[in-house]
Amino acid sequence: MNKEIDGLKKWQQKIHEVIFGYHTFAGKLFDLVLLVGILASVAIVMLESVREIDANFSQEFHFLEWVFTILFTLEYIARLLSSPRPLKYALSFMGIVDLLSLIPTYLGIFIDGAHALLVIRSIRLIRVFRILKLTHFMGGAQQLADALWASRHKVIVFLGSVLCIVVIIGTLMFMIEGRSHGFSSIPKSIYWAIVTITTVGYGDIAPETVVGQTIASALMIVGYAILAVPTGIVTHELIHADKKNNLGSCPRCGQKNLPKESNYCFNCGEKLKEL
Amino acid sequence: MNKEIDGLKKWQQKIHEVIFGYHTFAGKLFDLVLLVGILASVAIVMLESVREIDANFSQEFHFLEWVFTILFTLEYIARLLSSPRPLKYALSFMGIVDLLSLIPTYLGIFIDGAHALLVIRSIRLIRVFRILKLTHFMGGAQQLADALWASRHKVIVFLGSVLCIVVIIGTLMFMIEGRSHGFSSIPKSIYWAIVTITTVGYGDIAPETVVGQTIASALMIVGYAILAVPTGIVTHELIHADKKNNLGSCPRCGQKNLPKESNYCFNCGEKLKEL
Amino acid sequence: MNKEIDGLKKWQQKIHEVIFGYHTFAGKLFDLVLLVGILASVAIVMLESVREIDANFSQEFHFLEWVFTILFTLEYIARLLSSPRPLKYALSFMGIVDLLSLIPTYLGIFIDGAHALLVIRSIRLIRVFRILKLTHFMGGAQQLADALWASRHKVIVFLGSVLCIVVIIGTLMFMIEGRSHGFSSIPKSIYWAIVTITTVGYGDIAPETVVGQTIASALMIVGYAILAVPTGIVTHELIHADKKNNLGSCPRCGQKNLPKESNYCFNCGEKLKEL
Amino acid sequence: MNKEIDGLKKWQQKIHEVIFGYHTFAGKLFDLVLLVGILASVAIVMLESVREIDANFSQEFHFLEWVFTILFTLEYIARLLSSPRPLKYALSFMGIVDLLSLIPTYLGIFIDGAHALLVIRSIRLIRVFRILKLTHFMGGAQQLADALWASRHKVIVFLGSVLCIVVIIGTLMFMIEGRSHGFSSIPKSIYWAIVTITTVGYGDIAPETVVGQTIASALMIVGYAILAVPTGIVTHELIHADKKNNLGSCPRCGQKNLPKESNYCFNCGEKLKEL
Repeated sequence: MNKEIDGLKKWQQKIHEVIFGYHTFAGKLFDLVLLVGILASVAIVMLESVREIDANFSQEFHFLEWVFTILFTLEYIARLLSSPRPLKYALSFMGIVDLLSLIPTYLGIFIDGAHALLVIRSIRLIRVFRILKLTHFMGGAQQLADALWASRHKVIVFLGSVLCIVVIIGTLMFMIEGRSHGFSSIPKSIYWAIVTITTVGYGDIAPETVVGQTIASALMIVGYAILAVPTGIVTHELIHADKKNNLGSCPRCGQKNLPKESNYCFNCGEKLKEL
Repeated sequence: MNKEIDGLKKWQQKIHEVIFGYHTFAGKLFDLVLLVGILASVAIVMLESVREIDANFSQEFHFLEWVFTILFTLEYIARLLSSPRPLKYALSFMGIVDLLSLIPTYLGIFIDGAHALLVIRSIRLIRVFRILKLTHFMGGAQQLADALWASRHKVIVFLGSVLCIVVIIGTLMFMIEGRSHGFSSIPKSIYWAIVTITTVGYGDIAPETVVGQTIASALMIVGYAILAVPTGIVTHELIHADKKNNLGSCPRCGQKNLPKESNYCFNCGEKLKEL
Repeated sequence: MNKEIDGLKKWQQKIHEVIFGYHTFAGKLFDLVLLVGILASVAIVMLESVREIDANFSQEFHFLEWVFTILFTLEYIARLLSSPRPLKYALSFMGIVDLLSLIPTYLGIFIDGAHALLVIRSIRLIRVFRILKLTHFMGGAQQLADALWASRHKVIVFLGSVLCIVVIIGTLMFMIEGRSHGFSSIPKSIYWAIVTITTVGYGDIAPETVVGQTIASALMIVGYAILAVPTGIVTHELIHADKKNNLGSCPRCGQKNLPKESNYCFNCGEKLKEL
Repeated sequence: MNKEIDGLKKWQQKIHEVIFGYHTFAGKLFDLVLLVGILASVAIVMLESVREIDANFSQEFHFLEWVFTILFTLEYIARLLSSPRPLKYALSFMGIVDLLSLIPTYLGIFIDGAHALLVIRSIRLIRVFRILKLTHFMGGAQQLADALWASRHKVIVFLGSVLCIVVIIGTLMFMIEGRSHGFSSIPKSIYWAIVTITTVGYGDIAPETVVGQTIASALMIVGYAILAVPTGIVTHELIHADKKNNLGSCPRCGQKNLPKESNYCFNCGEKLKEL
């Protein structure tokens, strides 16, 4: 009996190594197969939406969709079983994404309008990040995330100001240009203001009066100058983060900004680590 | 009599704490209610402008507008009364914004074309900043404002150059493309040049001759390179500000911007740290 | 005789002070009047081009244009006479701009098509910079110019790469989309590629085939990533320039990056300047 | 016999100096002639594609194309002969570009549809870089390339996130806007999302429903904020690279990236400067 449990444990550990790990050959192969599977299943979602292609291959797409769903279902069950804390995995962000990407196909049996579930199927793409996560790309992502998180206060103030400008200018343009020039309501005018301040500029709505064009010009130049602010913030944080990653100061001479990998203080030569 | 004044003072202080403060539970609750009120009243201004919605809820919107105006009026009076210096508050930026956001509804009784006052009603949104102001977002806003203020000379030189380029290129394009291609006057050509150099690019006016498209291409690439300048300025100031904010001023001579690794004040030679 | 020359010299000096200087009250007033004059004369050039306005005020504009031209001519003569080296002034950049901005009106007497000289008249705007030049904006401008000059090699390499990408992608799109989709020649395709890579995006020409849209998407993302490069360069140079403006190292302890205004070394307290 | 070989070797060396070198007068002249030749031959490719010009000068263009091709062929042979390792040159990037830029004209004799080879002819432009390569622009290019290479992990994470956002939003918009508003398939919706997030904004496809415009607004603001990230990365790397290039490596242990103010190597404690 004890042996059986031991055997099970060993099996569980082995599966865990293959599915969650990435050091063994089997783990790497599994990741690669999964990556191809995810990309292929998202590609199918896309191709299905192209009318000319779907007309000819509708059956094949349907079949492949089921193949992928069943494979992903098996993978999900394996993850649950091999995980030391199945519930924790199931409730983690990635666990939910894994589950969500299975549901649409099964629901399609009962409900006819599976069309609305297309988006959920495209969410599968997020799963690609798990595979990247395991590699050395993680460092870069972490640094970026840290920089963005450290600058969140400034970014919120910045976005708040942009929203304020956009609402006031939007209301102004609604009054000046009016319904006949495409500014049919304040929300639509605000949409126009966002399209303009972000320098997207579709041109589906464009000011036609002299006053309107003058205000639009001012808004563009403001947007232009404002574009500098988030860039400045992120750059600043990235540089700042870099400095924080230093080791701190030397206990003997007080020299600051010692590189992380220091064994000796570069100013007074004090030994900092046991070698 | 003295007691009465004391009682009044106490009351005034209590109201002041609730309205202007944000440390007590009542103060926080007040801020939250105000925030919801402001957002709701701005939302109503927006929804009123959508023809289909206004057709059905015109009455309700009118009623709600009055409710919010009366509430904001009461708040304004409370602020005036509880403020230790009512006049100073009334003439402050926020005091004027508070007053301005009330007027349009009252004016609407006398004047028919309250349409023109829509913008003023949307100005209410600025009041949201007061609430943010009280929190820890203030630090981020202050840093941004400092960076922008410190770089004002460079930004003005930069905007001046952009305006110069835009006027000269605008005149050139008016001559080359002419009225038949949409460049109907020099101001309109300048509008086009601004739309182009800021990379908005509506496409409502676009060059059609070969020479015009060549000049436009040059303008775009210049705009592209120029985009780098304000970003560089702001980033530089943010990093610079960071360095300046380090040690504070010298206790003897008051010299500011001491480098953080200072042992002595670089102005008067005062010893700052025990060595 | 000698006295006469002395008197003339004094007059010349006085005029020089008023026209070129900006420390005396007269000098400041002159600058202000000149600024208003330049802006007004450029405004007239613009308004003349608006058909509806020109129809009613053509005569007035013509009269004002002559008034400004005569005033600027007198100013030009005064500058020539009061300058210690008239020829040097006449051949300087600003001297040529001053002269150029006069010519079009005089030429208009002899030649009928003064239309083509509009641009030259708008060049007057550059003269505004002289007035700014005299003030403390100069520092900011110098810093910007230095940063741009220091990064010229990188900017040229960058622009060269962009041009290369644009030519190759332009040729590719001409082949793929062809004349029927608006890509009527390689130069026009290159124009489209520039409009796209700079994120202007007029939409007057847009890819319609699947392959074309895929290449366009790639081009946009490349353009997006590439936008980072000039910004990085300029920011880097601005920060670098800042460091160079430091004082150098302490002669006693060798501490680097001493602030420009240091009297004492902030590390060892060594006296750096005679007070 | 030996003398003959020696003479040949000398000749080979001389040709090598002219073609590959840039120190002698002949070498500089050769580079200049080549530069003009390359630019002229690319200009011909462009002009040929303009129907009106090609109609009149078709014969001349054909003739010039052959002249350039023969000249470039001779240059290619000279490079092969004078190169100390002909095969290494032939298989290098520049060698392949040199060969590729010759083939289309020769192929045009046998195959009729040389149209498809236009792009390959425009690739000649890359050869210009060889000439720039030899000059002091190289330093700038190297610094840029290093900065981009050092930030590759972050850039890949960044592009991955952008692609993820673009696919999910594209699918969402396909569902919301649907085929009747131009979002005819998911790939096309993704194309629209890329056009929007990169702030290009052609306007050939634009959301028309309220929900669609709201999502589009959110996407634009995200794109706006995201634009800051690659800029921050590149700027950070440029500044970082600058710092790394300061003192060089330790003479004892070879440790790189020593801070410029080091007195001792922070890795092995070796004394670097006399104190």
